[in-house]
Amino acid sequence: MAGHSAGTEIERLIQLLSRLPGLGPRSARRAALQLLGKKETLMRPLADALQDAADHVLTCTTCGNLDTTDPCSICADGRRDKGVICVVEQVADLWALERAGANSGQYHVLGGTLSALDGVGPDDLNISGLVTRVSGSDVREVVLALNATVDGQATAHYITDQLEGSGANVSQVAHGVPVGGELDYLDDGTLAAAMKARRPF
Amino acid sequence: MAGHSAGTEIERLIQLLSRLPGLGPRSARRAALQLLGKKETLMRPLADALQDAADHVLTCTTCGNLDTTDPCSICADGRRDKGVICVVEQVADLWALERAGANSGQYHVLGGTLSALDGVGPDDLNISGLVTRVSGSDVREVVLALNATVDGQATAHYITDQLEGSGANVSQVAHGVPVGGELDYLDDGTLAAAMKARRPF
Ligand SMILES: [Zn+2]
Ligand SMILES: [Zn+2]
Repeated sequence: MAGHSAGTEIERLIQLLSRLPGLGPRSARRAALQLLGKKETLMRPLADALQDAADHVLTCTTCGNLDTTDPCSICADGRRDKGVICVVEQVADLWALERAGANSGQYHVLGGTLSALDGVGPDDLNISGLVTRVSGSDVREVVLALNATVDGQATAHYITDQLEGSGANVSQVAHGVPVGGELDYLDDGTLAAAMKARRPF
Repeated sequence: MAGHSAGTEIERLIQLLSRLPGLGPRSARRAALQLLGKKETLMRPLADALQDAADHVLTCTTCGNLDTTDPCSICADGRRDKGVICVVEQVADLWALERAGANSGQYHVLGGTLSALDGVGPDDLNISGLVTRVSGSDVREVVLALNATVDGQATAHYITDQLEGSGANVSQVAHGVPVGGELDYLDDGTLAAAMKARRPF
């Protein structure tokens, strides 16, 4: 906190800012001061942007992406390949693949990975939604773009089992990815190469 | 940016978040996703807190502190020693000294330091306001709590010259502070000790 010298409004602001990933108490104080020094050019626009996004951003009921429309702009884009679904853990991974231009097909966001340690089972992830999307559809390939972690790979195996008999081939992005690394940290080139070199799973 | 897959509202939010100190583009994206996942418990409260602080936080016309009242709660506090003014560069330094409980007197926020390199002269800082506050007042001591940097120390010398003949003694926090270090980074104990061991300048 700022200490008793700062008003309650500032304390509250610092407290909320410090809950953002990457901002500790000290950087939250610096951020609050920066904002208070730029009320019209940064602070009010940020307040408005937060309100707008809270009001208008939806989760796509088809793929799990975040957008202002449902279905999202990717699902609604007729130029994208409907025959390929790229499966990712989080929306951040979808964004990373889009920045890399690595996928011209659809996406499916699981919302995490299976994890015995964290008590995450198949029903906690959007896996049944994936099976439904693929079954009896024109989807010919499901590309697993999950993190190269133990949980990510266990999840890849589980999904492959679930999709057996669906008629779609299951592939996985190439492991040029450092083992134990997380997808969202990789540079665009590595991501694009890993996507291109995908192999049957 | 999130890429063309995310709505304009998300792009705008990420762009504004990335302007906060300590948040680059990647951590701004993570922060946006965290906020979108906690719309009611974090995102809307943060929007409200930003709006509230933008509406209600003022700069104290006496000392330069930020608060919801002018004069600020420190200037208005009758229990604090009116005979001592502690001079700091930034509000963040004032907050640090308050957290340390290192000053029972008043404050004066300069808004920076003299800097030939950055073209900051005496008129760009709240130095004349300090001279006015001290002249013909009951202030018996001005404690300089400026950073132990070249610019901080040049500013300390300049202020000491300006206050000559004002009747107030000018002291400076002890340099237990690492040379080249910044006040806002220090732990409370070091700050309190440096304050206690202040000496005539
Ligand atoms: Zn979608
Ligand atoms: Zn004040």
